[in-house]
Amino acid sequence: MHAETRFVYLNSRLLPVAAAMVSVFDRGFAYGDALFETMKVSAGCPVFFDDHFQRLNQGMAEAGFSTHLDSQGLASQATSLAEVNGVEGGRLRIMLSRGTPPRPAGLDPGSGLRPTLLVTADPFAGHPPAIYREGVVCRTVRLNRGGYARLKSSGLIASVIARREAHDAGAFEAIFTDGHGRMLEGSVSNIFFHDGETLATAPGTSHILAGVTRQKVLDIAGELDIPVVYKALKVEELDPGAASAFITGSVLGICPVREIDGVLLRLDTGLTGRLSARLGELEQASIG
Amino acid sequence: MHAETRFVYLNSRLLPVAAAMVSVFDRGFAYGDALFETMKVSAGCPVFFDDHFQRLNQGMAEAGFSTHLDSQGLASQATSLAEVNGVEGGRLRIMLSRGTPPRPAGLDPGSGLRPTLLVTADPFAGHPPAIYREGVVCRTVRLNRGGYARLKSSGLIASVIARREAHDAGAFEAIFTDGHGRMLEGSVSNIFFHDGETLATAPGTSHILAGVTRQKVLDIAGELDIPVVYKALKVEELDPGAASAFITGSVLGICPVREIDGVLLRLDTGLTGRLSARLGELEQASIG
Repeated sequence: MHAETRFVYLNSRLLPVAAAMVSVFDRGFAYGDALFETMKVSAGCPVFFDDHFQRLNQGMAEAGFSTHLDSQGLASQATSLAEVNGVEGGRLRIMLSRGTPPRPAGLDPGSGLRPTLLVTADPFAGHPPAIYREGVVCRTVRLNRGGYARLKSSGLIASVIARREAHDAGAFEAIFTDGHGRMLEGSVSNIFFHDGETLATAPGTSHILAGVTRQKVLDIAGELDIPVVYKALKVEELDPGAASAFITGSVLGICPVREIDGVLLRLDTGLTGRLSARLGELEQASIG
Repeated sequence: MHAETRFVYLNSRLLPVAAAMVSVFDRGFAYGDALFETMKVSAGCPVFFDDHFQRLNQGMAEAGFSTHLDSQGLASQATSLAEVNGVEGGRLRIMLSRGTPPRPAGLDPGSGLRPTLLVTADPFAGHPPAIYREGVVCRTVRLNRGGYARLKSSGLIASVIARREAHDAGAFEAIFTDGHGRMLEGSVSNIFFHDGETLATAPGTSHILAGVTRQKVLDIAGELDIPVVYKALKVEELDPGAASAFITGSVLGICPVREIDGVLLRLDTGLTGRLSARLGELEQASIG
């Protein structure tokens, strides 16, 4: 499959990328009035599809999207698209905007719109293996995404800006903080801290996205009797050289952090290794 | 001009609405990575164009949009579009997305993208006159838009949801609050409180959008020697029957609030009338 002839599904029609267009009045474009999920593709199959589908449905309920998505139909579209695009390993994105109103009518969407459904699949060889061995550098930003951060909406300009700032400063990921400097989440990840025994992460009631991989880590911690403290930590509360941290994401998996804002952390292999091994098993099982 | 043959400017091309399409990989659609301004159109001209243009440029700088917009060219496009669409009075929207990457590349936009510029103009007869006489009902929501609220980005799903909730509850506008219940801003407006003498409004350092009309009101307060206190108030701090409030917006102008969360406010005509009269003069001057 030539890279320039990739396809997408737009409203269940298979289209070459160049033909996949939406109206400038589509509410996804005009208002960021859209939800999405990004999944890892492994062996041509979306990983943890059911978890992502469930979160998408929760977002639809919360945002008042009036439609019903068929889980099986969408999963088979996803798998079929991965095949058409020759994606064995990569990223799959499902995006659902509220649709295009017959006439632009301002912020209130009214009712009866037919959502725009987009499925894209791209090859991705994965992040460089070194980051999993050596850890990544993170950098806090003083802002966060506010009370609607829990919605996986396409309104990502905060993440775009934070991530650009982090990259410009040589960091891999930006960490949003609350008004007191407590670390909430990464721009495209969740963050965990530990001392080799107890895990700490921001509570789901904070202004964070409840990541699918975050939840898998919490589930695994339960299985393995690893205690979890739901608390958002400040950089000053980290014990340099003794505290460990990792970030999680659907495509990223579990990746250790070696430094935050200049504070060097202990590179852990024990606990992170156990979690990663079990996560890999669950990923396999989900596509099995 | 028939309503169904309206036109837009998309990247400086005049197109019928039905032909105005963007790629599903346009970052405005994919990530809400876009900025916009909405202006009132009066006598066929955009009101306070320079102020909106300036805020758009500030947003571009903050979000790292690498382009230069020509103020005069954009203003003449706006006026020409209003004419083509037969819009004497109405709403004008300028939207600038970061553009469409040659290949989808994740959240980080990289560099060298050519932004997508959209100008739309729609007739709008204005809100019902009664709301300016009788005031509107507002309803607080417990959330806010976070530290990036100051960016006028198209990632508006928080506003969409808050406004739907308000409308479903019979209210005209939803008011975002901070973690302590302090009222920050409306979903598409700013909010002011007063006792007939001193104005109070959330400071610009709060998580609010610095509205163009909000700034005009502050400027007018300076001209008229009306003291301003920058403070976000809680509903409990309002003196029922004695406190007054109004909301501001580019198309809305200044509109009194008669009730917030069931608390009846004093319907003021004195101070609000003076501010509104002066705002009208400034609007006229800006298109004169």
